Amino acid sequence: MTTYQKIISKFKEKKHICVGLDPDLEKLPRHLNGDIVEFCNTIVDHTAEYAAAYKINLAFFECFGAEGFEKLKIVVNHIKKIDNDIPVIGDAKRGDIGNTSKKYAEALFNYFNFDSITLSPYMGKDSLDPFFDFNDKLNFVLALTSNKGSNDFEQLETTSGERVYEVVIRKLRSWYPPEKVGIVFGATNLNELINKIHEIKDIPVLIPGVGAQGGELTDVARVFYNANSSNFLVNLSRGILYLDNSIEFGKAAGAEIKRLNKIVEEIYL
Amino acid sequence: MTTYQKIISKFKEKKHICVGLDPDLEKLPRHLNGDIVEFCNTIVDHTAEYAAAYKINLAFFECFGAEGFEKLKIVVNHIKKIDNDIPVIGDAKRGDIGNTSKKYAEALFNYFNFDSITLSPYMGKDSLDPFFDFNDKLNFVLALTSNKGSNDFEQLETTSGERVYEVVIRKLRSWYPPEKVGIVFGATNLNELINKIHEIKDIPVLIPGVGAQGGELTDVARVFYNANSSNFLVNLSRGILYLDNSIEFGKAAGAEIKRLNKIVEEIYL
Repeated sequence: MTTYQKIISKFKEKKHICVGLDPDLEKLPRHLNGDIVEFCNTIVDHTAEYAAAYKINLAFFECFGAEGFEKLKIVVNHIKKIDNDIPVIGDAKRGDIGNTSKKYAEALFNYFNFDSITLSPYMGKDSLDPFFDFNDKLNFVLALTSNKGSNDFEQLETTSGERVYEVVIRKLRSWYPPEKVGIVFGATNLNELINKIHEIKDIPVLIPGVGAQGGELTDVARVFYNANSSNFLVNLSRGILYLDNSIEFGKAAGAEIKRLNKIVEEIYL
Repeated sequence: MTTYQKIISKFKEKKHICVGLDPDLEKLPRHLNGDIVEFCNTIVDHTAEYAAAYKINLAFFECFGAEGFEKLKIVVNHIKKIDNDIPVIGDAKRGDIGNTSKKYAEALFNYFNFDSITLSPYMGKDSLDPFFDFNDKLNFVLALTSNKGSNDFEQLETTSGERVYEVVIRKLRSWYPPEKVGIVFGATNLNELINKIHEIKDIPVLIPGVGAQGGELTDVARVFYNANSSNFLVNLSRGILYLDNSIEFGKAAGAEIKRLNKIVEEIYL
């Protein structure tokens, strides 16, 4: 299956929660002694049945250097072994000149075997193309992010009347077909989401910012429901990973994603 | 020494060429059998005397996964051993929400021991702050890049009359002191460089796009000279690394950077 097919299949199963794997040593249950692979794999074991996708944050592995990269590969492989049809997103926010982006794409698609990558659009089309040249993959490009700093540049108003992030969305749509491109749109920007929903509702939208960052799951789901679309992935990291500090942390994560799925299901009844 | 002091010291020695280490297997001399560490270290051995800085492109190591990360660390250590006062820039173009940027900063500063990192500004101030929180480091933030795609978003005109990259420069200057922040400004945008020189001439400007990408070294140096500034680092990768396919490739690189230094020196006579 292509990444697009994998994502759409999950949406059809009414799964919309993406589990963000950000294994933070300071928050890991003590009994794991900092074993981030054991932590991630256990979370996966308990959530794979309910998850629409996994989003792995590369920074939380890169900070351990080469060893971290080995661990990252083990975690990706573990997810693929459990269920090869769950899309695994590499949250890397890459984007560079062509020959460099090509190398990043090789790293993320060939070496790590991600189904999808998050990309930063700042450098423009030729910095994104090498990632889109990979057939069967779909990438999520930053449009409007969930952090406060999204006001600094993403929200700048341009002379065309559009904000920068709106130009990003418009151009992405003209460059790439809907089976190849998704966007990142922060849950903290609910009004902007409502304004843009009809332009983006036919492509997968990855939505961070629910939970720790303040956005609300029901609000987001209602925007898509009202637009007659179900093309959204709501990412939760801290809101799923660190609910329990005991050996039951995996179960707690599984119970939480099940609960979150129900919240969405009830809206789409 | 802080990174800023290291960079300024090199400028005082009339060194302005940054050697971009992008070890591309397809271009490596055959006798090396793809040994990118041997390649990079040999280039360093022959250029350290003349180099203002090294810029290591992470993509060209990440594409080998965990092994590539180990090799990257070896190359950084090799440069530091040869001359700890040469700034080593990690060309990573990172930028993410705060807790993630913090992890990237730990990876790049603590694990790899880079003096400086390239950053992408798209997500705004709070995505950059964790990198600037490291004392003694100076980071280069993308302003106007050398690729064709710089027209797509960086050059968008905003309602304030500034282009997006101009807003980036203005805000960076208001957020961070000159000893902490540099910018990336592509040599292919000579007119824009001339227009902005008085706003940026007191901070280090990292300039890609000379050589393979078409910008000219003398043109760039003259812009800074005419503005009574010498705060520029011109990066050359392909234009230094791959001049000779024999066992003499290191010598060829050394001779080339020596020649490039002379071109700049003659302007500043």
